[in-house]
Amino acid sequence: MKVNGKGYRTVWMEGSSVFLIDQNLLPFYFEIIEAKDYFETCRAIRTMSVRGAGAVGATAAFAMAQAISQNSGDILWNYVEMAKRGIESTRPTAQNLFYATNRVFTAAKKSKEPKEIAVREAQKIADEDAEACLRIGENGNPLIKDGFRIETHCNAGWLAFVDYGTALSLAYVAHRSGKKILVYTDETRPRGQGAKLTAWELKNEGVPYAIIPDNAGAYLMSKGKVDMMVVGADRIARNGDAANKIGTLEKAIVAKEFDVPFYVAAPTSTIDLNCKTGEEIPIEERSEEEVLFQTGLAENGHIQRVLVCSPGSKAINPAFDVTPARFITGIITEKGIVEPREDLIKRLFS
Amino acid sequence: MKVNGKGYRTVWMEGSSVFLIDQNLLPFYFEIIEAKDYFETCRAIRTMSVRGAGAVGATAAFAMAQAISQNSGDILWNYVEMAKRGIESTRPTAQNLFYATNRVFTAAKKSKEPKEIAVREAQKIADEDAEACLRIGENGNPLIKDGFRIETHCNAGWLAFVDYGTALSLAYVAHRSGKKILVYTDETRPRGQGAKLTAWELKNEGVPYAIIPDNAGAYLMSKGKVDMMVVGADRIARNGDAANKIGTLEKAIVAKEFDVPFYVAAPTSTIDLNCKTGEEIPIEERSEEEVLFQTGLAENGHIQRVLVCSPGSKAINPAFDVTPARFITGIITEKGIVEPREDLIKRLFS
Repeated sequence: MKVNGKGYRTVWMEGSSVFLIDQNLLPFYFEIIEAKDYFETCRAIRTMSVRGAGAVGATAAFAMAQAISQNSGDILWNYVEMAKRGIESTRPTAQNLFYATNRVFTAAKKSKEPKEIAVREAQKIADEDAEACLRIGENGNPLIKDGFRIETHCNAGWLAFVDYGTALSLAYVAHRSGKKILVYTDETRPRGQGAKLTAWELKNEGVPYAIIPDNAGAYLMSKGKVDMMVVGADRIARNGDAANKIGTLEKAIVAKEFDVPFYVAAPTSTIDLNCKTGEEIPIEERSEEEVLFQTGLAENGHIQRVLVCSPGSKAINPAFDVTPARFITGIITEKGIVEPREDLIKRLFS
Repeated sequence: MKVNGKGYRTVWMEGSSVFLIDQNLLPFYFEIIEAKDYFETCRAIRTMSVRGAGAVGATAAFAMAQAISQNSGDILWNYVEMAKRGIESTRPTAQNLFYATNRVFTAAKKSKEPKEIAVREAQKIADEDAEACLRIGENGNPLIKDGFRIETHCNAGWLAFVDYGTALSLAYVAHRSGKKILVYTDETRPRGQGAKLTAWELKNEGVPYAIIPDNAGAYLMSKGKVDMMVVGADRIARNGDAANKIGTLEKAIVAKEFDVPFYVAAPTSTIDLNCKTGEEIPIEERSEEEVLFQTGLAENGHIQRVLVCSPGSKAINPAFDVTPARFITGIITEKGIVEPREDLIKRLFS
């Protein structure tokens, strides 16, 4: 997608280097990191310069390709296996990461040209991620009418993937197809991914948008100002329950109250057929510091942290919540849109 | 209520001076302003050192008393009327302010000792506010069981009144009566009154509490962790619809979904019998700066403003929303608890 008018992906490989947008500096500064070897690429994952399932997966694939292709001379597979474990330890809860390293490793190991094949396979993983996301946007596009005001929560945009994103892919495809849309992006406290990343993406792509406090969703819906809500997902159970950023459940309940269609957009890789219902999805409790402090841009141009709560307070910070299937109008995947019903979800994989 | 172990009101008069807690510095610094004449007291209202219906009303009453009692020699009622208009212009939308200035002015004018009567009437207004708030807490107390976890939104505490507050008065009375309670205070973006003022009040009073992001309410309720929700109100229509801080509507809908009792606590002066339904209540749209920037305490001890959104973004900032009566379990007033029904509400005034 566009940044200052030029097309970018979140991560790409050129020669033997991996290049990434440093997401820790967004939305205030736009800088590209060059990771010259797999150690540097791992550091970028670990320090969260790159984040989001798709983007982390592709970055791990490129790291694996670096570890294989940067061997001078014969490949020592012992060394490569050690590197693989190193890459996998950067973000041990990211499912996509293991999928990516395994795929690159296996393709390379059984090939006669492991160095070339490793790079090609990693590239393929990145391309597939971008294509699936584009397809999600295309599949969702018929749902969007000219003039639609679409609310979204958190950042399910291209920064979390290799390109396009999931929920925001709908907005991008609709916008490029000439429809007039307005995106309301929930601020998404405590980390503010909506106010920071989603807003940054939309601005750079030229899609009209407005940031709203997380508190304002119900009000706008009650005034008939929201035509559709679309969010991403971190994990979808086979019955259609969807885990996503904290606050999604609240929005889904409110959307149902006001008859606003509520869609979840995600690649089928997000669907976990081994997970019966959302009850089985563990909810990560994150540091209270994220609630107590806010990071922003000070007048002197420095990114600064300020305490925004009464000193000495305790905070509770659940990172995700689970939206039961009954609040979800449909799940938009690269293979099509399904109602959140087990039989229909399973059919996506047949 | 207590601050550092000592009892305070938000505003009081001693000699000819009015003293106020400077709420602009809270929760980071606790300072008392001494306003030596009614000009200085007006400035405190205008600069929002004092805020909240009850507290602004009492402060205006004291300002009126100052304007009358600080006349040396005979009172020039023309001058006093000018002063009255000056006081009323400090916050022209605050209904309590006009009520207070009129009451003090009228009592003084018809008396033979206008200076003494003005001060006494202002004091009476402040006392009545505190007593009504205490009564609200006492009336609500039977609803609270030992071990209750009570969620609240924004700041409906003593800082918005002369003492005790409304929603928080329930927590204070329950706590003082020996019940073990835990208060979840919604952060309440964009201005963060929950994270800042409510948390500060609860900490100083020794009531156990935790700050939660506005996004986390539904999650906690879905896990059965909220026993009751209680909020204040800015205005209540005669059918029971209640206008309150943005986000209240969202919480009320979510509370109903999870069968969490949802109470509105407010003095009967908040009920506007001329207002048929919530539809008639205009919603103030405030500056987008409140969403785009956050104010907090920097490491160097300065109160600082940082940009927390993507630069160049537009934000929408409705300050209030209206919760329809059907989502409200009961309205807790100083005269008792009523269901939000027109006939029952009207009976409060008979």
